[in-house]
Amino acid sequence: MTPVKVFGSVAFTNVARVLVCLEEVGADYEIVDIDFHVKEHKSPEHLARNPFGQVPAFQDGDLMLFQSRAISRYVLSKYRTDEVNLLREGSPEESALVDVWLDVEALQYDPAMSSVFFQHRVVPALGGMPDEGIIGESVEKLRKVLDVYEARLTKHRYLAGDFLSLADLSHFPETYYFMEMPYAAVFDSYPRVREWLEDLFARPAIKKVVSLMAKDFSG
Amino acid sequence: MTPVKVFGSVAFTNVARVLVCLEEVGADYEIVDIDFHVKEHKSPEHLARNPFGQVPAFQDGDLMLFQSRAISRYVLSKYRTDEVNLLREGSPEESALVDVWLDVEALQYDPAMSSVFFQHRVVPALGGMPDEGIIGESVEKLRKVLDVYEARLTKHRYLAGDFLSLADLSHFPETYYFMEMPYAAVFDSYPRVREWLEDLFARPAIKKVVSLMAKDFSG
Repeated sequence: MTPVKVFGSVAFTNVARVLVCLEEVGADYEIVDIDFHVKEHKSPEHLARNPFGQVPAFQDGDLMLFQSRAISRYVLSKYRTDEVNLLREGSPEESALVDVWLDVEALQYDPAMSSVFFQHRVVPALGGMPDEGIIGESVEKLRKVLDVYEARLTKHRYLAGDFLSLADLSHFPETYYFMEMPYAAVFDSYPRVREWLEDLFARPAIKKVVSLMAKDFSG
Repeated sequence: MTPVKVFGSVAFTNVARVLVCLEEVGADYEIVDIDFHVKEHKSPEHLARNPFGQVPAFQDGDLMLFQSRAISRYVLSKYRTDEVNLLREGSPEESALVDVWLDVEALQYDPAMSSVFFQHRVVPALGGMPDEGIIGESVEKLRKVLDVYEARLTKHRYLAGDFLSLADLSHFPETYYFMEMPYAAVFDSYPRVREWLEDLFARPAIKKVVSLMAKDFSG
């Protein structure tokens, strides 16, 4: 069987999200780099894969997909087994809770983190000055999200319940970068969240993708 | 059978999104208003339903959900029939494309629209001055999204393919409000997008929810 293809460098959080799903299910895949320096992401070939000119794009035979969480769902559903069912397919209640907490990650957690990352890392790289006001507001938003997570994870081992799911895994890429920034100290007040993250970062699939990310930067 | 409950006023786009799904499948439901003027959304009762103190929250017997797109998925899956299968369950490829375009709505279309709405309607209501720079940037972002939609809808009747899905329906609430603002003229350059929207707004389920929204404002 031809391996599925992921277009985009693993250094991008949205690419890393898809790769960790492929690793969790043990799928055979190939990474195809897209060179932003030569604007390959705006080439007709890549726009045919992802009309927004973003990464990742994903190919499985004739099927082309984009949007990292949609790709992740497809991967986890395609390679699902009785043991590895990270969308909880077959249980309407559990899979609805996976959807709830995946939407929380996408619409509440990630925007706060990404805003801090953009100001702290991207703005200076482009020669600008980080807006400390925006950083402060975003850290405050993150704190409100973490208040909810701490309570939820005190009741359950994982976000959607007492089972690992895509809702948990989806948090790893942006959190990985956030933890390298001085604002990471915000997590100190949330012991259960820290424990949950340690549990996630100890998973072989996440360790593998983290090692690919590190290699991508040094290479 | 006890009707499912939706907590929150239909004037909120995220509540309207859930209601249109319930209408499409013909489910029996009850709307429970949450009074923001007396801060009912921050009451312990409501925080137990939605820990972020937002609307909607959703109840089906013992199951409590929040996040409008997660609730919409649950509703469309629970009441799915052979005729009304708006997630395309049973077809991995088609349902993946529904996921792709639902993520586009949530992460690209809605943020641009909501940002304009916030500046144009919410900021003045709170006694402030709209930031025309932010409005301009957001309209520009929206234009880039609409470029992609125009091309997609020239190839297919609906976003995910030649079938109606949650990906289309999910656009109606924020578009409804946007069309009342002067910036709505941005749609003039996109004839296929306008046709697609006319098709959506002619649906009995959307007409019904729009009538509830109008009543909510006049009451």
